[in-house]
Amino acid sequence: MNILISNDDGIYAPGIKSLAEALSKFHDVVVVAPDRDQSATSHSLTLYRPLRVKKVKPNFYSMDGTPTDCINLAVNGILKKKPDLVISGINQGPNLGDDITYSGTVSAAIEGTLLGISSFAVSIAAREQFNFDSASEFAVHLAEMVLENGLPPDTFLNVNVPNLPKEEIKGIAITQQGKRIYEDLVFKKLDPRGEEYYWIGGGEAKWEKENGTDFEAIENNKISITPLHLDLTNYKALKIIKNWNLSF
Amino acid sequence: MNILISNDDGIYAPGIKSLAEALSKFHDVVVVAPDRDQSATSHSLTLYRPLRVKKVKPNFYSMDGTPTDCINLAVNGILKKKPDLVISGINQGPNLGDDITYSGTVSAAIEGTLLGISSFAVSIAAREQFNFDSASEFAVHLAEMVLENGLPPDTFLNVNVPNLPKEEIKGIAITQQGKRIYEDLVFKKLDPRGEEYYWIGGGEAKWEKENGTDFEAIENNKISITPLHLDLTNYKALKIIKNWNLSF
Repeated sequence: MNILISNDDGIYAPGIKSLAEALSKFHDVVVVAPDRDQSATSHSLTLYRPLRVKKVKPNFYSMDGTPTDCINLAVNGILKKKPDLVISGINQGPNLGDDITYSGTVSAAIEGTLLGISSFAVSIAAREQFNFDSASEFAVHLAEMVLENGLPPDTFLNVNVPNLPKEEIKGIAITQQGKRIYEDLVFKKLDPRGEEYYWIGGGEAKWEKENGTDFEAIENNKISITPLHLDLTNYKALKIIKNWNLSF
Repeated sequence: MNILISNDDGIYAPGIKSLAEALSKFHDVVVVAPDRDQSATSHSLTLYRPLRVKKVKPNFYSMDGTPTDCINLAVNGILKKKPDLVISGINQGPNLGDDITYSGTVSAAIEGTLLGISSFAVSIAAREQFNFDSASEFAVHLAEMVLENGLPPDTFLNVNVPNLPKEEIKGIAITQQGKRIYEDLVFKKLDPRGEEYYWIGGGEAKWEKENGTDFEAIENNKISITPLHLDLTNYKALKIIKNWNLSF
């Protein structure tokens, strides 16, 4: 099968190398990835400037754009044939709960889905000393499953893998998106010229305790697979708001 | 009430001026908006560089970041008090269907929601010769409704207004997110030095004909209000994928 890979950590990140090597044993793999770190770029698309593509080695292309640009341009401009599968990752860091709305990694899978291609994103749920072996091996297996079963319409998978050797992983959970508790911190300081600047900090990652979430699976050293879709409509709220007196 | 306004067209765009003026008659309004056009930046957050804030006039602050940065920094760094409402817009151009995942305007409302503040985004569903009067008047009315009724948890509103005088608007529809049909075009050309470049184009905006969508409301010259939420889990798919043989 033909598999298109991207990420948001950049083409030289070890996670994408590990993923591409593992998949290349079984499939035709093309990598189109940003030329630098594009974390937290979300689903942004570059509309107001041209994009440059550079072949860095056979089947590896780098681009001066976002992960979304990479998938869009790969499918609409670079690849001769529409790929059978898009995989984004392996990301250095978790993509759990509401944080996925910021994620460049997850957005590459969103772009694949919008283009009508089965897609999933894979992240390592850790902050350092990443071991990509388990995640790569699992991604190869999941690719088979997705190619065999297909995905429901407009649906993609968000996969988070514990940073553990395979034998220490406690299973695989199909989860719902958890809810992050944000305690965002903004730092305000003075630059060398005495001018104020702000810097958005992270705060500690906390989440609402709820059974069946992606957060819970990772906490229990399980692989989390969350099926996501692109219809953000809150159908329950739709019924409530129909009762508002909206005429003006 | 205290209302925080942002947009993705930039602080000098006429839509945000019209919105701020209309709301200021009834509320305390603070504008924190990007210093330039930030369309299609989606929900990107600036993590790797500082942000500068400039007071351009009383209660108007510009920032060298994305709409998401503006809301985050306003709430966590600039405003003395958490606002009662976040409004993003009025955007010059529609934000309908799957396109909302790219939208900076909608993402400002997402950020407000993540910070626990009732939020909505307002866009004019046209491409040129924008008239912001109807949209501004409706935004004032909707703000009252939201402040009075509250919004369901984690839910925000995506509002699109026809580019028409109030008397020509055919009503208000509470809608579901429609499905865009993408025919993305990528242009490949040569620069003055003979080097290839790519440019992502738009293609024509088409959508799947379905009753009750945001697209349909706009086509019928109605205001569209789509209640959206941040839980992207596809619960139906969750049940299906639980039957896959995922052990590896």
